[in-house]
Amino acid sequence: MKMFKSDNASGIHPKILQAIIDANQGHEHPYGNDRLTKRAKEEMSKLFGKDVDTYFVTTGTAANVIGLASLLRPYEAIVCTDTAHINTDEGGAFELFSGSKILYTANKNGKIDINDIKKHFVSIGDEHRSQPRIISISQTTETGSLYTVEEIKRLADLAHQNNMLLHVDGARIANACVALNVSIKEMITDTGVDLLSFGGTKNGMMVGEAIVSFNKDLSKNLKFYRKQGMQLLSKMRFISAQFLAYLEDGLWLENAENANKMGQYLKNELSKLPGIKVKDDMKTNIIFAHVGKYIIDELQDKFGFYLFDQETNLIRLVTSFDTKKEDVDSLLEAIKKLEER
Amino acid sequence: MKMFKSDNASGIHPKILQAIIDANQGHEHPYGNDRLTKRAKEEMSKLFGKDVDTYFVTTGTAANVIGLASLLRPYEAIVCTDTAHINTDEGGAFELFSGSKILYTANKNGKIDINDIKKHFVSIGDEHRSQPRIISISQTTETGSLYTVEEIKRLADLAHQNNMLLHVDGARIANACVALNVSIKEMITDTGVDLLSFGGTKNGMMVGEAIVSFNKDLSKNLKFYRKQGMQLLSKMRFISAQFLAYLEDGLWLENAENANKMGQYLKNELSKLPGIKVKDDMKTNIIFAHVGKYIIDELQDKFGFYLFDQETNLIRLVTSFDTKKEDVDSLLEAIKKLEER
Amino acid sequence: MKMFKSDNASGIHPKILQAIIDANQGHEHPYGNDRLTKRAKEEMSKLFGKDVDTYFVTTGTAANVIGLASLLRPYEAIVCTDTAHINTDEGGAFELFSGSKILYTANKNGKIDINDIKKHFVSIGDEHRSQPRIISISQTTETGSLYTVEEIKRLADLAHQNNMLLHVDGARIANACVALNVSIKEMITDTGVDLLSFGGTKNGMMVGEAIVSFNKDLSKNLKFYRKQGMQLLSKMRFISAQFLAYLEDGLWLENAENANKMGQYLKNELSKLPGIKVKDDMKTNIIFAHVGKYIIDELQDKFGFYLFDQETNLIRLVTSFDTKKEDVDSLLEAIKKLEER
Amino acid sequence: MKMFKSDNASGIHPKILQAIIDANQGHEHPYGNDRLTKRAKEEMSKLFGKDVDTYFVTTGTAANVIGLASLLRPYEAIVCTDTAHINTDEGGAFELFSGSKILYTANKNGKIDINDIKKHFVSIGDEHRSQPRIISISQTTETGSLYTVEEIKRLADLAHQNNMLLHVDGARIANACVALNVSIKEMITDTGVDLLSFGGTKNGMMVGEAIVSFNKDLSKNLKFYRKQGMQLLSKMRFISAQFLAYLEDGLWLENAENANKMGQYLKNELSKLPGIKVKDDMKTNIIFAHVGKYIIDELQDKFGFYLFDQETNLIRLVTSFDTKKEDVDSLLEAIKKLEER
Repeated sequence: MKMFKSDNASGIHPKILQAIIDANQGHEHPYGNDRLTKRAKEEMSKLFGKDVDTYFVTTGTAANVIGLASLLRPYEAIVCTDTAHINTDEGGAFELFSGSKILYTANKNGKIDINDIKKHFVSIGDEHRSQPRIISISQTTETGSLYTVEEIKRLADLAHQNNMLLHVDGARIANACVALNVSIKEMITDTGVDLLSFGGTKNGMMVGEAIVSFNKDLSKNLKFYRKQGMQLLSKMRFISAQFLAYLEDGLWLENAENANKMGQYLKNELSKLPGIKVKDDMKTNIIFAHVGKYIIDELQDKFGFYLFDQETNLIRLVTSFDTKKEDVDSLLEAIKKLEER
Repeated sequence: MKMFKSDNASGIHPKILQAIIDANQGHEHPYGNDRLTKRAKEEMSKLFGKDVDTYFVTTGTAANVIGLASLLRPYEAIVCTDTAHINTDEGGAFELFSGSKILYTANKNGKIDINDIKKHFVSIGDEHRSQPRIISISQTTETGSLYTVEEIKRLADLAHQNNMLLHVDGARIANACVALNVSIKEMITDTGVDLLSFGGTKNGMMVGEAIVSFNKDLSKNLKFYRKQGMQLLSKMRFISAQFLAYLEDGLWLENAENANKMGQYLKNELSKLPGIKVKDDMKTNIIFAHVGKYIIDELQDKFGFYLFDQETNLIRLVTSFDTKKEDVDSLLEAIKKLEER
Repeated sequence: MKMFKSDNASGIHPKILQAIIDANQGHEHPYGNDRLTKRAKEEMSKLFGKDVDTYFVTTGTAANVIGLASLLRPYEAIVCTDTAHINTDEGGAFELFSGSKILYTANKNGKIDINDIKKHFVSIGDEHRSQPRIISISQTTETGSLYTVEEIKRLADLAHQNNMLLHVDGARIANACVALNVSIKEMITDTGVDLLSFGGTKNGMMVGEAIVSFNKDLSKNLKFYRKQGMQLLSKMRFISAQFLAYLEDGLWLENAENANKMGQYLKNELSKLPGIKVKDDMKTNIIFAHVGKYIIDELQDKFGFYLFDQETNLIRLVTSFDTKKEDVDSLLEAIKKLEER
Repeated sequence: MKMFKSDNASGIHPKILQAIIDANQGHEHPYGNDRLTKRAKEEMSKLFGKDVDTYFVTTGTAANVIGLASLLRPYEAIVCTDTAHINTDEGGAFELFSGSKILYTANKNGKIDINDIKKHFVSIGDEHRSQPRIISISQTTETGSLYTVEEIKRLADLAHQNNMLLHVDGARIANACVALNVSIKEMITDTGVDLLSFGGTKNGMMVGEAIVSFNKDLSKNLKFYRKQGMQLLSKMRFISAQFLAYLEDGLWLENAENANKMGQYLKNELSKLPGIKVKDDMKTNIIFAHVGKYIIDELQDKFGFYLFDQETNLIRLVTSFDTKKEDVDSLLEAIKKLEER
């Protein structure tokens, strides 16, 4: 059974699993001092077209929190939307680990409004206020919307003009690259992003996320934060091996392409159904829809989608690298069957 | 090539790797709400002969820090030895995550002295002092020594008589059980240990450690600390699958048995060599020896042992679940060859 | 010259200064173990009509942060308005000291909306989310509005029905008591408030705030948090002496009465002036008004009011225990003179 | 009655109290933006013969913790003795506020051993270890001993040669200056100390300590740490006024001179008594002595000295700025009377 709860309900892509198997040869220096980790870091630099600093970790929360904290003093803050994963879904890890504050703003279709960021500039230099230091956005956003390349560049420029930095939570960056049909270099490196959480787990890996720094000066002490963040794996080679397979021959984009294609197929078919109101403007693998309550009652357990808002019966359906047309069809048919009753 | 740097230079035991492969079937509820995690937790309770609370994480640092922090208010402290891993090798993760203090004492052959613990009791109730709340010991200790079952019981009793708790860092608990020839139930459950970091990675797993709580009342909120500790894996089933294989048919003890056997073989053979002084009282897979400086110069790179003390040329050699007699022999021969020069 | 910047631009009330002078006799046990501190705590219990737990500190930030943190685990959150002092004006002290999160909601005339609090109840038990544990309100609010006694009771009931607590930031609680003409016992004790930051500095003391706990069980370890919060004064008697004078013969209410009276006089006179729009619903010593930009340009330096919003020329004027009618008149005349030009 | 418990059992020096009274004139800009604070900072620069950065706070714990934390990333550590106040008597405030680790070493007569510091240099660059960043010493030490000017210079040099900084906890720096008969400029500025906690409260002030930074580059963000440390007083002028009086005409040295003189008189007279063993090498106002248990039983309550070690009946007696010869005599007579029984 394929679920629509989240893309992390899926398993491991066969090529990535094979990479773990292949990496299981003899002994290697622990804690990332192995040959595969060295190679995986080099591949990251190739991918981004820049000599980036890469640190592998095991959760998206760790990628976000450790990366951000390494750039902050405790009296500095990040600015993000109210719906940002770092704000709502990390159990307060950011505040505890960094000691810093989150200045969250009302999202506009899941995205941040530049004017809301600017409001915080009045407090610069005033010790009564946490000092805004990083703008953090998610691409793909938590509501399934996307920033254009131009919008990202504008945010990076705004940040840099105000002694701030730009962070991108890229738990689903692959889906964004595919949906916008731009390379990750164009979307991230060329726009001036300073720090990226580059997701792997949701898109076919067993476990693996990468903190990617585009400014080696700023990240020169990041390794200490990763260790202190309890994320320095001893058998790191098995994370690195996954990343090597993930990047090889564009597997990461291939995976996202399938997820997006299935997401869009689901979206289009759902919108044809009576009584279902699909939210606009979703081009990836995250689909939001207002549905009849009976659909939630009858099908949530079986298909595992997420009830987002109880009052408006808004559900979230997520497709993944291994979702097949028949998986979507089976959901659609179940809905149709309910409606025929 | 097999290294002697640490048992985590090794790879994955074939049965554990197979368990990962087998677990890669379809979708599962993420974040530990899957069937394998449920089963793995049940197996832990069977192992300990008690209905324990188990939380899987990815590093030993996380097991120690998250488990301990969940039992502490920031004005409370742990008491451990100066050589404790939590004190020396976790990059300050404990202090940052818990906000608490480590009261470390001079170790006696790697072990804690009960009188040193008692010295801290004078400060109880005095707000100028961090309040001692947990005694934390390592079994096997970082210097390769072992606490007897009776010693552990005495520490647990001391703790409980003084409103304190006993934690065991069991990164190498398997090697201790084998060396002392006692079951983990006798060593941990029956002695009254409150919290155990149960190691997996060093003993044949790819990645996996468990926080085991013997007091469900105290650990009822531990899940929040794990999430805030950035250790709630989405595809948890692949950690749980490893633990299932690890525990099945006593594989974890079998692995430790080999590591210990090879460690003892290495110890015995080393002590026959001229100019090498092997430290006494090591019954597991960790061997310390004072060697000639030329051995370090010539062989450290190839055999990857760890230089512990530069002044006295003290090296640490660790064998692992996959160390073979010929691996040890190859090291011994290399040493002999050097000595013939 | 009297300023209108904040009530803490004022000095020390003569009776309170005299109490400091009188307390300067010989030696006393340090760290709050002196006789004056004992007496001051007893007076607090009398004031609130309940055997409360009182801890003196030196800043409002300390009163809020230490009090709140003592009731929280790091995965728990407080819910307050976006304009709450704890959210905007404490430099991120709360997040750093407690490790906890602030869930801030859009204020309604400076006050919290019960429905906004309820929205956070959906996340209870979900480890991905910081768990709402305390509702924190300010009385008087930062925008000069007031909660009625009934509203406070409703918030306390909501909190208690949902395993939460109610905290009141009472930096200007005296002004609220006077404006609503209710005793602090009725407003705080009888409504079920769990924790109060009882302000002194803004209302005539040299330095002194009190953390007042209405639940001794919950505050039994608060002394450790105060010490860890760096607020255990050695010569505590001089803070306690101030509080004794502050409470004696209702001086604290007398001071607030003057501040409020002057605030209301200022409000009424300002509203008669052309081109000035005074905000409604302000019954204490905090007055907000939209004024002509020339007033800000010409008079801000001299009269020291605070520019709240540059776009709408919104200024805040605060009167204090020692503001005299002629001080207000002198400001009013300066404005009139400008308008005659 | 004068106590011998601690110098902070004393009250306020009359000249300092007068300064508070004199400062109580009209309104001033709050939060340290007043004229007295400006002047007090200038006086500090004159005192140290250097353009220093000064921040006033209310407790010695705050001076130490805020100053140190402002210079540290959480993966960095301080090195100090086991008896250092920052290690034993601040309730764990340092760990909570900074997230950093304390590497404490066995003291030698209350002082740090340079070789113990050097042992931590092996871990530099290794992310498994907290990185030593600051050497922190106390002058006068907690055991009443003193560093010579040359020793301080040697520690500063060692620090700077190893990319570290030197901090001095100067809660009793005045007594050290008097005892060694050197100016504070020679002792602190000229030796290369980077950060000083300059005590006031123990030596005649009501409440007031200063964080003094000798490197304005390093302290440029210290104001944010002070605010986040909950120590930005609104009516700061009353702290600054005390410091102005404290420094004027060398009152701070005069006060220490009396305390030291009384301490030395007490030491000399005590050592003449039978059955009392006074510890050597104490030149300030802190006196340690092994006494008969009956002295503790009979006189501790009345004279308020501190029992340091129950096993050896070691007591600590501290004289202060207002201790008179008759106070000491009254203690000596009480002891003699007991002995005559």
